[in-house]
Amino acid sequence: MNYTDIITEKYSSDGMRTLFSERNIVRTYRLCWIALAEGENELGLKQVTREMVAELKKNLDNIDFTLAKKKEAETQHDIVAQIHAYGEVCPKAKGIIHLGETSQFVKCNTDLIIQKQALLLIKRKLQDLLQLLAAKISSYKATPTLGFTHFQSAQPTTIGRRLCIYAQDFLSDLEDIDTLIDTIKARGVKGTTGTQATFLTLFGGNHNKVKKLDQIVAKKLGFKESYQITTQTYTRKQDIKIHSALASISATAKKFATDIRLLSNLKIMEEPFGEKQVGSSAMPYKQNPMRSERICSLSRKVMNNLADFYDTYAEQWLERSLDDSAIRRIDIPENFMLTEYIISLLAEIVSGLVVNENISARLLENELPFMASEEIIIAAVKKGSDRQVVHEAIKEHAVAVTKRIKLDGKDNDLLERLASDPRIRLTKKELERLLDPTVFIGRSIEQAEEFLKGLKKSTR
Amino acid sequence: MNYTDIITEKYSSDGMRTLFSERNIVRTYRLCWIALAEGENELGLKQVTREMVAELKKNLDNIDFTLAKKKEAETQHDIVAQIHAYGEVCPKAKGIIHLGETSQFVKCNTDLIIQKQALLLIKRKLQDLLQLLAAKISSYKATPTLGFTHFQSAQPTTIGRRLCIYAQDFLSDLEDIDTLIDTIKARGVKGTTGTQATFLTLFGGNHNKVKKLDQIVAKKLGFKESYQITTQTYTRKQDIKIHSALASISATAKKFATDIRLLSNLKIMEEPFGEKQVGSSAMPYKQNPMRSERICSLSRKVMNNLADFYDTYAEQWLERSLDDSAIRRIDIPENFMLTEYIISLLAEIVSGLVVNENISARLLENELPFMASEEIIIAAVKKGSDRQVVHEAIKEHAVAVTKRIKLDGKDNDLLERLASDPRIRLTKKELERLLDPTVFIGRSIEQAEEFLKGLKKSTR
Amino acid sequence: MNYTDIITEKYSSDGMRTLFSERNIVRTYRLCWIALAEGENELGLKQVTREMVAELKKNLDNIDFTLAKKKEAETQHDIVAQIHAYGEVCPKAKGIIHLGETSQFVKCNTDLIIQKQALLLIKRKLQDLLQLLAAKISSYKATPTLGFTHFQSAQPTTIGRRLCIYAQDFLSDLEDIDTLIDTIKARGVKGTTGTQATFLTLFGGNHNKVKKLDQIVAKKLGFKESYQITTQTYTRKQDIKIHSALASISATAKKFATDIRLLSNLKIMEEPFGEKQVGSSAMPYKQNPMRSERICSLSRKVMNNLADFYDTYAEQWLERSLDDSAIRRIDIPENFMLTEYIISLLAEIVSGLVVNENISARLLENELPFMASEEIIIAAVKKGSDRQVVHEAIKEHAVAVTKRIKLDGKDNDLLERLASDPRIRLTKKELERLLDPTVFIGRSIEQAEEFLKGLKKSTR
Amino acid sequence: MNYTDIITEKYSSDGMRTLFSERNIVRTYRLCWIALAEGENELGLKQVTREMVAELKKNLDNIDFTLAKKKEAETQHDIVAQIHAYGEVCPKAKGIIHLGETSQFVKCNTDLIIQKQALLLIKRKLQDLLQLLAAKISSYKATPTLGFTHFQSAQPTTIGRRLCIYAQDFLSDLEDIDTLIDTIKARGVKGTTGTQATFLTLFGGNHNKVKKLDQIVAKKLGFKESYQITTQTYTRKQDIKIHSALASISATAKKFATDIRLLSNLKIMEEPFGEKQVGSSAMPYKQNPMRSERICSLSRKVMNNLADFYDTYAEQWLERSLDDSAIRRIDIPENFMLTEYIISLLAEIVSGLVVNENISARLLENELPFMASEEIIIAAVKKGSDRQVVHEAIKEHAVAVTKRIKLDGKDNDLLERLASDPRIRLTKKELERLLDPTVFIGRSIEQAEEFLKGLKKSTR
Repeated sequence: MNYTDIITEKYSSDGMRTLFSERNIVRTYRLCWIALAEGENELGLKQVTREMVAELKKNLDNIDFTLAKKKEAETQHDIVAQIHAYGEVCPKAKGIIHLGETSQFVKCNTDLIIQKQALLLIKRKLQDLLQLLAAKISSYKATPTLGFTHFQSAQPTTIGRRLCIYAQDFLSDLEDIDTLIDTIKARGVKGTTGTQATFLTLFGGNHNKVKKLDQIVAKKLGFKESYQITTQTYTRKQDIKIHSALASISATAKKFATDIRLLSNLKIMEEPFGEKQVGSSAMPYKQNPMRSERICSLSRKVMNNLADFYDTYAEQWLERSLDDSAIRRIDIPENFMLTEYIISLLAEIVSGLVVNENISARLLENELPFMASEEIIIAAVKKGSDRQVVHEAIKEHAVAVTKRIKLDGKDNDLLERLASDPRIRLTKKELERLLDPTVFIGRSIEQAEEFLKGLKKSTR
Repeated sequence: MNYTDIITEKYSSDGMRTLFSERNIVRTYRLCWIALAEGENELGLKQVTREMVAELKKNLDNIDFTLAKKKEAETQHDIVAQIHAYGEVCPKAKGIIHLGETSQFVKCNTDLIIQKQALLLIKRKLQDLLQLLAAKISSYKATPTLGFTHFQSAQPTTIGRRLCIYAQDFLSDLEDIDTLIDTIKARGVKGTTGTQATFLTLFGGNHNKVKKLDQIVAKKLGFKESYQITTQTYTRKQDIKIHSALASISATAKKFATDIRLLSNLKIMEEPFGEKQVGSSAMPYKQNPMRSERICSLSRKVMNNLADFYDTYAEQWLERSLDDSAIRRIDIPENFMLTEYIISLLAEIVSGLVVNENISARLLENELPFMASEEIIIAAVKKGSDRQVVHEAIKEHAVAVTKRIKLDGKDNDLLERLASDPRIRLTKKELERLLDPTVFIGRSIEQAEEFLKGLKKSTR
Repeated sequence: MNYTDIITEKYSSDGMRTLFSERNIVRTYRLCWIALAEGENELGLKQVTREMVAELKKNLDNIDFTLAKKKEAETQHDIVAQIHAYGEVCPKAKGIIHLGETSQFVKCNTDLIIQKQALLLIKRKLQDLLQLLAAKISSYKATPTLGFTHFQSAQPTTIGRRLCIYAQDFLSDLEDIDTLIDTIKARGVKGTTGTQATFLTLFGGNHNKVKKLDQIVAKKLGFKESYQITTQTYTRKQDIKIHSALASISATAKKFATDIRLLSNLKIMEEPFGEKQVGSSAMPYKQNPMRSERICSLSRKVMNNLADFYDTYAEQWLERSLDDSAIRRIDIPENFMLTEYIISLLAEIVSGLVVNENISARLLENELPFMASEEIIIAAVKKGSDRQVVHEAIKEHAVAVTKRIKLDGKDNDLLERLASDPRIRLTKKELERLLDPTVFIGRSIEQAEEFLKGLKKSTR
Repeated sequence: MNYTDIITEKYSSDGMRTLFSERNIVRTYRLCWIALAEGENELGLKQVTREMVAELKKNLDNIDFTLAKKKEAETQHDIVAQIHAYGEVCPKAKGIIHLGETSQFVKCNTDLIIQKQALLLIKRKLQDLLQLLAAKISSYKATPTLGFTHFQSAQPTTIGRRLCIYAQDFLSDLEDIDTLIDTIKARGVKGTTGTQATFLTLFGGNHNKVKKLDQIVAKKLGFKESYQITTQTYTRKQDIKIHSALASISATAKKFATDIRLLSNLKIMEEPFGEKQVGSSAMPYKQNPMRSERICSLSRKVMNNLADFYDTYAEQWLERSLDDSAIRRIDIPENFMLTEYIISLLAEIVSGLVVNENISARLLENELPFMASEEIIIAAVKKGSDRQVVHEAIKEHAVAVTKRIKLDGKDNDLLERLASDPRIRLTKKELERLLDPTVFIGRSIEQAEEFLKGLKKSTR
């Protein structure tokens, strides 16, 4: 019953935790060392033999964490400890592990590799979410509902068309993730201050070979290329870009979840609720949008974390200062875990989304007469009324009904009033026909359909 | 080798982790339930007997976490599960645990109690740090050193006097912590929306008893009083205040650690280094200010976390929305752990602070002739020189020496030049006497002494 | 039709703009110079005569801005230019203006003086707002209204009791402002790096006089004392404290304004609207909570600006670096102007606050049957029903009505159903009596009254 | 001598202020109205004649600001006032200006158009800066200088190679700006809630024409296309993207300027200083890196402003809430003005960058012996020394010299010591040859050249 942090315990998936586990980190260090040794061997560095490389590869997963911990306690240096532990199981390669490099060779490249893997995980989750959203857009594209500006009644839209708002923004987020995955570069093989000096010595002044080594290792590690210029580390601007993408996903989720919370109050749209779920002991039938609230909570965190990355980048001194280290070790896993968790929560909500169409219809019906003055005037004029007189009559009733609702707390009876006013000359039936919601939703359906077409293309 | 978050693993103390451990949280829930039952009993509520209270007290630490977890899985409700687990070991009191309250009764009061305990821990650490700083101020109050404005040479100060800058700000932080500890109020006994409705029913409409219950429970839980007005929760403005104090400590630490990093480059002041500590494999004698860098890294985190608390407060809707929950569960322990860790790192640095007095003296000696024109002119005029001529001569040499240093990369020989210029009529000896650093430090020593006096008073 | 910034144009008051006007700034510089000269004279510095001081005082407002601008263009130094301009109209004092100090003497002290004046302005506005709030709390303390947790129906409260939430937090903000006004210290008379070296020379090594000068000048400028330790500037932690208080006010305003926006949708509570105010061309009767939305917009700005002050403080190097200057010149006036404007907007809203009591009553009436199961059961049992049977019956109806509302979009008829169920044995009349809202508001009225009593005491 | 905000007064260019001037804003509104009318006419809407469009075009710049202000005071609505003022000078078109749209049609499209223009301005400034940087990289690509990690001596690099760090990041920023300029979409013609309902009515239900109108207007306004989905406004995620790019430029500038400030202390690299520029009255030869400090100050502002845009986006409710308005009116011009100003300051610094090559060389010379143990050992072994003995000897001297420097404040005499140690068998000449800095800079020159090649390609 010791302290465990809540993200590890609750707000993360096994998949993401595995990516950022010590096992995966150390394994990825080893992949970097293998790529380095293999590259050095391929470029003819005599110290590094194929046999050594084979030994390293064979022992990739043969990790003795206990030994490494012991060695770290001795040396106060985690990478030295890991080199030692790897060397213990690779007696032949022992002397050439890490040859020519500084700790940041494994640390930076590993950070980039794992972040890329994590981005791929995020990408898949986001694609799934977009699929779910597309299905709901399709189902509800023609379901009219009241629009809201200033959280006050506004021109109608449709339930599905409203969902396009979030889907379009998630699609934009997905494109950013895609671009990132495509363009992340390796830190590569650059030495202590980025000048590759030790490698130039190792390769007897052969610039071409040093340059090639950098490229070969980058490719072996799954990157198209490495940064031309690094300091001891890759530029922390890369981290800004990655975590901007996560913050942007979180921001979209927060906008969406906030809207769900607002619509839940109106009972138009709700989160799915389990059979056994209980609102509160006092009010068992209460259905609180708790997942949406949690999304808002955690999105705020991911959004606000972005400042850390800007500051860390801008405050790096010259060829590197260590003030990037501790904060990145906190923020990088946290941001990926939370973002993935947020997407998962949202996917749960969307897949079981409750739309109370009749409530939506009723609310709309109530408000339409207030919005349709122009349509009513035109129809009344056709029936022989005077435009000015009708305009006056409608205004009169609207003001009276607003008063009735707000001051007396009574029902909206605008439709009845209009129908019974002889100046307007329209029956209730005629008015109702006029107030057909589908007339007021404009191009909602078509926009939703066009959006879905585009979405299918982009996510194919 | 699963994922463990780095704060739990590295950047926190046992003491702070214990405070935020599940054991302490659940134990504190129980303290709240005991206080509630005891208060209800004392105020004559028949359902709640002294026997029940005694049973609850006796079983305070008799916590079956496994049972609680099981129950939580069933009910999806952590507090219900804890009530159940407590009830299991308290068969008599079973029915009256939590009587009249909502989950936030235990959650909010526990958050306040534990944060108060954590503030006490921070307070002690900060007091220790101030003690260490005071000792160094005292030791170095008379050691002259170059001042720096724009990170360029400026009027001299002393090493100890400079340390007063940080100490004064930490003292201000300490006062804020003290005020907080004194003024934190309980959430008390308020019910679902803060109106105490259920309690009014329980006490048959007796307002006075309900009010007293709130006060009694607050006192039993260690608070002077409870908030007059709460919603379901205590106002999250209280959290803003607490975490502003932590952010402020971190900011002071960041300013201090940054200065250490700057002075380390000049070798004037350094972190202590262990015998075995190794700079880097290529440069074993390099002494990197790694603790100061880590302080900068983590302080940035705590400072930026503050935005979360402002947003969480301002975005709470009406009598409460749940978007405060997840983010507070992340941030509250994180901020306390990191702040305490930052103070500890700084205490380590200060207690072993390395001051290279001779380097400091030499740098000052080099720069003093540039700053002392007025003093030189006065002395020269006394010797019979013409003020204007001497002024001109000094300027000539200063420009020439600046050129010599910057363009030719040579030593500063201003003193020699001035001494050998017949227009000035001062020997090197005379000049050196004139350039006695202690003449230029103004009231540094006295200010340091006065500050220490005030410090002793405030921290007594 | 040139560019003018929108804060100057719209979001600020004449009073606040005057405080931060160049005229007031330069005038305050002169007050600092007068205090310095007067202090020097009083402490016996021969260069500074009473005649000079009198001349300076006489010409306090005789400011030639054109000359100063011209001089600034020549010297590239604003303070040198101002000294020159002052000297032009004070030929006797010309040589002793600014004697012994560095630019930050006038800049820092002026920043502190003007910020203190601005805090006083904020304080008065906040007191007025609290008066307005108190009146509304008093008016509506007994008006029952639905509580909301998760923006879902919760136990009733009263309109006035809800307003206490904001008032209590504003009261806490006001106390912070009060503390600030009381505790702001002067930067005083400290010289280039804070050591007072030039003054020690001026006063021939008399420490006591230098110390006294610092105190005298601080008092003349309206402060109780000056900071013991400064660098070239006063500690920027003071700015953090001031702007935390402004951010805190803004946060309270944002919480309040957000709640108004939520309640506007429900038509329970609204901003006042002018007779001529038009919602939108399409929907003239729409009443958008535009002031509340603007408050949310601008509060966000003030809250987020706080990060600037933390960063500026923490990034100051050694005895001072200039990276504090430009950002403070932007943020300090901006924050004061916006905060005052936010309070004014809110005062406008509160003073004309529209409460639609009948809507509030109706909404509550609709929801009460869902919350009152316990009360209904007790009454039914008294009438001879079986507890278990009644419990079952209520649950049955509640589920059915929820379905009816959500799925069919129909009215809530729970009351009717309960009244007509023979198992329950209560007439509609009896049920209505049972569901008297005032029974469910707990201690709302008393809490509001107690709060008002406390408020009166604190703001007296 | 009224209040004027400092950004308008000091930290902005005429060009940028003109873009955000009221004149340009109103003119752009009119361009939107012209595009709308023209589009409506082209698509056969009878109400809108070619004559009207011609009249509108003719009067584009015939703006009566006084009339508009008067009308705004009357109607409390800025867009209505502008429509009126335009109508006054276009009597024929009067009735059809703005036909079918809501205020956000002109506001959003104008915001996008002006931001795009501002991005183009930023782009040109950034290209110029990169040109200046490229020239300096080229000049100093082969000038060896000490590298710094932890702000402690590290493997050498070259002055030009170090400049590549900033240039590469600015190049990345430039690419982001380019992408933005290419991809910004119009808000287009969407109506009140984005559904284009009024236009569907205007075009008698012809979906195709409504869609075309949206596209035509977008193209007329200089965009490739318009957003498929908008609410009343374009998605505020677009603003996040734009202002992320500005924050990113500022962050690069802050990193660069911080490094200049650090290197200024060491006198390796300095800002240009004017002939007349004066450090301080006490120290006239002091050259403070004031522009770099100002860059740090203002960059902090732009970086921290980004949070506003994230929050504004995420807090938008449903089809639109007005809490985006006031904050965007503050932040959008501010961010563009400051970013452009920051780039200008940096361009000034880079174009006159002072590199003190001899100081750089001397510092390097001093540190090289500490870094070159491996090279010395190899050479000594070639001369017949024993590897282990030499290793021991070097270590001995290094420790002694470190002590001599730090404890005694004396010069570094490591080279002399090594030369005179018989165990090492190398003369001072031989050692100096060995310690040729160009041997230690690795691929710095080649990396700089390769970078410049790539840069030329990207910015062509």
